[in-house]
Amino acid sequence: MDPLSLREFEAAARARLEPAYYDYFAGGAGDEVTMRANEAAFGRLGLVPRVLRGVGKLQTGVTLLGCRAAMPVLVAPTAFHRLADPDGERATARAAAAAETIMIVSMAATVAIEEVAAAAAGGELWFQLYVQPDLAFTERIVRRAEAAGSGALVVTADSPVLGRRERELRHGFDDLPDHLCCENLRDGDRVRPIVLWPELSWEHLAALRDMTALPIVLKGVTHPADARLAVKHGASAIMVSNHGGRQLDGVPATIDLLPEIVAEVGGALPVLLDGGVRRGTDVLKALALGAAAVAVGRPVLWGLAADGERGVSGVLGLLRAEVEHALTLCGCASVLDLEPGMVRRSC
Amino acid sequence: MDPLSLREFEAAARARLEPAYYDYFAGGAGDEVTMRANEAAFGRLGLVPRVLRGVGKLQTGVTLLGCRAAMPVLVAPTAFHRLADPDGERATARAAAAAETIMIVSMAATVAIEEVAAAAAGGELWFQLYVQPDLAFTERIVRRAEAAGSGALVVTADSPVLGRRERELRHGFDDLPDHLCCENLRDGDRVRPIVLWPELSWEHLAALRDMTALPIVLKGVTHPADARLAVKHGASAIMVSNHGGRQLDGVPATIDLLPEIVAEVGGALPVLLDGGVRRGTDVLKALALGAAAVAVGRPVLWGLAADGERGVSGVLGLLRAEVEHALTLCGCASVLDLEPGMVRRSC
Amino acid sequence: MDPLSLREFEAAARARLEPAYYDYFAGGAGDEVTMRANEAAFGRLGLVPRVLRGVGKLQTGVTLLGCRAAMPVLVAPTAFHRLADPDGERATARAAAAAETIMIVSMAATVAIEEVAAAAAGGELWFQLYVQPDLAFTERIVRRAEAAGSGALVVTADSPVLGRRERELRHGFDDLPDHLCCENLRDGDRVRPIVLWPELSWEHLAALRDMTALPIVLKGVTHPADARLAVKHGASAIMVSNHGGRQLDGVPATIDLLPEIVAEVGGALPVLLDGGVRRGTDVLKALALGAAAVAVGRPVLWGLAADGERGVSGVLGLLRAEVEHALTLCGCASVLDLEPGMVRRSC
Amino acid sequence: MDPLSLREFEAAARARLEPAYYDYFAGGAGDEVTMRANEAAFGRLGLVPRVLRGVGKLQTGVTLLGCRAAMPVLVAPTAFHRLADPDGERATARAAAAAETIMIVSMAATVAIEEVAAAAAGGELWFQLYVQPDLAFTERIVRRAEAAGSGALVVTADSPVLGRRERELRHGFDDLPDHLCCENLRDGDRVRPIVLWPELSWEHLAALRDMTALPIVLKGVTHPADARLAVKHGASAIMVSNHGGRQLDGVPATIDLLPEIVAEVGGALPVLLDGGVRRGTDVLKALALGAAAVAVGRPVLWGLAADGERGVSGVLGLLRAEVEHALTLCGCASVLDLEPGMVRRSC
Repeated sequence: MDPLSLREFEAAARARLEPAYYDYFAGGAGDEVTMRANEAAFGRLGLVPRVLRGVGKLQTGVTLLGCRAAMPVLVAPTAFHRLADPDGERATARAAAAAETIMIVSMAATVAIEEVAAAAAGGELWFQLYVQPDLAFTERIVRRAEAAGSGALVVTADSPVLGRRERELRHGFDDLPDHLCCENLRDGDRVRPIVLWPELSWEHLAALRDMTALPIVLKGVTHPADARLAVKHGASAIMVSNHGGRQLDGVPATIDLLPEIVAEVGGALPVLLDGGVRRGTDVLKALALGAAAVAVGRPVLWGLAADGERGVSGVLGLLRAEVEHALTLCGCASVLDLEPGMVRRSC
Repeated sequence: MDPLSLREFEAAARARLEPAYYDYFAGGAGDEVTMRANEAAFGRLGLVPRVLRGVGKLQTGVTLLGCRAAMPVLVAPTAFHRLADPDGERATARAAAAAETIMIVSMAATVAIEEVAAAAAGGELWFQLYVQPDLAFTERIVRRAEAAGSGALVVTADSPVLGRRERELRHGFDDLPDHLCCENLRDGDRVRPIVLWPELSWEHLAALRDMTALPIVLKGVTHPADARLAVKHGASAIMVSNHGGRQLDGVPATIDLLPEIVAEVGGALPVLLDGGVRRGTDVLKALALGAAAVAVGRPVLWGLAADGERGVSGVLGLLRAEVEHALTLCGCASVLDLEPGMVRRSC
Repeated sequence: MDPLSLREFEAAARARLEPAYYDYFAGGAGDEVTMRANEAAFGRLGLVPRVLRGVGKLQTGVTLLGCRAAMPVLVAPTAFHRLADPDGERATARAAAAAETIMIVSMAATVAIEEVAAAAAGGELWFQLYVQPDLAFTERIVRRAEAAGSGALVVTADSPVLGRRERELRHGFDDLPDHLCCENLRDGDRVRPIVLWPELSWEHLAALRDMTALPIVLKGVTHPADARLAVKHGASAIMVSNHGGRQLDGVPATIDLLPEIVAEVGGALPVLLDGGVRRGTDVLKALALGAAAVAVGRPVLWGLAADGERGVSGVLGLLRAEVEHALTLCGCASVLDLEPGMVRRSC
Repeated sequence: MDPLSLREFEAAARARLEPAYYDYFAGGAGDEVTMRANEAAFGRLGLVPRVLRGVGKLQTGVTLLGCRAAMPVLVAPTAFHRLADPDGERATARAAAAAETIMIVSMAATVAIEEVAAAAAGGELWFQLYVQPDLAFTERIVRRAEAAGSGALVVTADSPVLGRRERELRHGFDDLPDHLCCENLRDGDRVRPIVLWPELSWEHLAALRDMTALPIVLKGVTHPADARLAVKHGASAIMVSNHGGRQLDGVPATIDLLPEIVAEVGGALPVLLDGGVRRGTDVLKALALGAAAVAVGRPVLWGLAADGERGVSGVLGLLRAEVEHALTLCGCASVLDLEPGMVRRSC
């Protein structure tokens, strides 16, 4: 029987993955407080539907930075898809394209962005970037992303150093197996290591702004003051994210941080969110509270590990069906009909 | 030993029911958050009794839309009683009549409304209606309900599509066995399927208003704005309901939604409630917060599955005894003596 | 090893008691929500000590209605002590007298008040009364209590009917074994049953007021409006009590109800409290929030069942030691030094 | 594999310690509510990082009362280190010195302060003092602490009597084994017992002030009024502490008490804190809320019991690494960059 929920996809994935790889994908930093909080916080929010609104044909599509997505659920950037499936990011990209949504390709992909783009066949891709201290190298990566048709750069801001994930330390997992590498880090005839860079600052973001015409999504914003700074420094969008609980443990759930950030930016740019989205109703809650769209990371990996491209299609299809179903039950013909008054802190 | 509480009736029912049927009755949509919340929310409300008020003879009866009920607890509409007992809705109706309370007969009953009415023998019946897109067919159903003596139409507003209940999907339960059907859906020589209709709107409610002189109870209202619209569109009563957690998962507990809705309608019409009522004290809490009466769904099915008509009588008798007992302990001679100051959020 | 805490006394008692008798003492009404809440609510209150106050000799005694108690912990009235120990209330009274505190003797004692008084030997006794509809009989009981030296009448207000305790129903426990009876209900050559009386009202309290010069403690007040009425009707004290969760299930924890009631009576009479007191720190929290003293019911029965008079002495001694210890740690030389600012809702 | 977290150090320690000694170190007073609350309260606080602040070289050092510590984490005073390791406080002192932080040596150390100082070899020591009723003896102890190079006196204010720890009572643990004693209590040719002194008052603190030029840290302050009094009576610093939950059970978590105390003293003196610090993020939360530094007690003992000096170094090294890591992830180049707006009550 096909999995009935994202949770069942995780169970299927866990059954098939090497434990060390499962834990690499599933784990979080420190005591995993933030990771659990992301999901739990959605559960504490109630959704109050409207009735008798004669909802007919649904409109679930959104336009983000000029890119069309058939649903307000994007594929979040996650590393190392070939640990989950031999086709890796190619399979993910085919499924995302089939679902007509945007895949944010990780800089730490195990398939090169050009091959991912080729596999996606008309699908919309954005490229996630850790700005490298060697800015010339960073520019070469950006050029590859542009050439591959990336519609935006998603710049990770929450990773001046790597989060400390004890599951990985326990497994001794600290690198890809020999036959895999971060293909986007190829530079001439070598593969460079990803450098996380504590000196990264707003000035470098300005440099990046000058480097490319692509819109820049600043990912990893959780403090309202930084949301304001992102507007000021010309970000095209922000993504409220605590890196799925994989970086600083103790950051509040993203859905709990969202309202203040939405209020802070006041419509100056679209606000995306990832972290803990496991149900169509979670998507609706985030949109009702002001998110333009959400992204899902681990669920896509569970689909990929469970059944390759077909599994990712299953995950995205399930989310789409749940979003449509929940919208109808909420009396909303469009995601634009969702508004804050439909969300209650229910306990 | 007879069950001492509604929970014990559920245990007895579970022991006797086909697992697929138990899960059909017991289950809820999605992660069943709303289903559990309905019960849990009553537990978080404290009841502060009054003392030394010389309560003598109790008055537990209520008059709802011109119908008398001996207690403020109605039988909520639930489908497919013949899955629980061969006599099905006939048994339920006999027990409800004996308890002198109102049974809301489901449009999805497995016994025709006429036969239920015949079995009820003077008992008060209301008829639950999913408005069908074929309005002429809807009118034929309404006429049958009128002819059978239904005292009101209970129009379900929370079901533009069917809730997604994973227990049912896991069992592959998607239809009645061959010897059963929705008898109220007979139309000439066929039985039509129930159509849930996303286009249903306030305009159709107006059409229904014109179609019959029966009072209309709008069931499934959870948003205060919709309560206001129900008043405006001429509903005779509303029932705050999240469909027992079987439709949109994530809706707050009905008892938590009640006060705002009561405030919103300001006495313009009676407000009923279902969802999570398992104790006489739950009934008192709802009435103290402004409900005119409550309805119980699953507990009636547990009584029916446990012991047929006798079991339903047991459930209703237990609730009546608990209501009377709690009223006396609260120093209230009548359900009208309950007031909001007797309810506290206790933790 | 002697029990180190009241909880250990309960374990010891449970090991020795008939299960039906254990459950009679231990159980509560309905889902036992109130019973558990009484204890849990103390756990949610924090106690903020003062330091360097040079506390020397402690003053733990209190004067209540002219009666001196060496500590602010009374023995709450509980029924049927001979189910716990052959000496029953005699043993309890000896221990209470030795502890120099007040024992509130239950009208449902299995030893007559005269014999309890004889056993107490100079100990202070109060008498708990269910006002009987036969007021002449009630007066005969009051006279016996007066003659036995009772220092106050504790009139139970929360029991117009008996609470429904499912543990008792499951055991079929509904009466004392043949060799025991409620000795205070002897009337001539028969033993009358205790009648719980729903018609009991403030007027009867006035009649009782006229019947005796003893101070009247009204027990079972939980609503602030009733506290105000108690003052108006001449009660000498009130006891905030939900009958240990044995009457109406769903009443908030007494410690959570206390502050509003203390504010309501504004010092017009002393406010006592029972329900959930299991530690010396619980006693301090109640006193800091305005209680003049507290009473303990079940713990005394656990002591009695565990080891007769010696067990009750152990329980009262432990509480006294814990009160003294906590007072010292709080920098309070006297229970009068406790004040609301030392209590915080800690989570 | 070396322990990855302080929790793993506790597991390792537990595996090596005599159960009675483990419970002596691990246990708390009463129901251990306060002990658990200390840790749990940190978990309820969220930490909201800043991004893109170009954090380069970190500054984790603090200066406290003129003493330099390389990180804002001190070794809290704890008794009886030789129960955990044969070298006892010598080993702890060597590790603290190597970590360049301040060790607060307990008056109840099993190694004399002079020998601890010799072992520390240039490490910074403070001396914890229970003021003894024999003030001349107290003065002799203070002189020894001064002579050994103690940089401050940490005067314990929360122990007018000893906390009642039931784990110890159950084990019958009430004294050191024969070969150990409290070496700082040697007085001539005898070892005097530590006397906890309920009469200790602010006046004695004044006497102590006159007795020595060392700065006095008042440890065990939890009530804002006492924080104000500490300022008035010339304390040089206060330490918000509930003695790790070992004295009065029911005191709120120290991190929950901190903000009000910080507000109360208004910068008049530095505020330290201990209780429940188990992660680098806990340190950051305390500092963001106004603490000048924190101290860790039990974790040091777990390191010591697990692996002697090397274990303590592991614990302090892990905390330092976690503090640095969390600071970087928070976008803070220095502990001084932390501010209250980065902390949220997250649920």
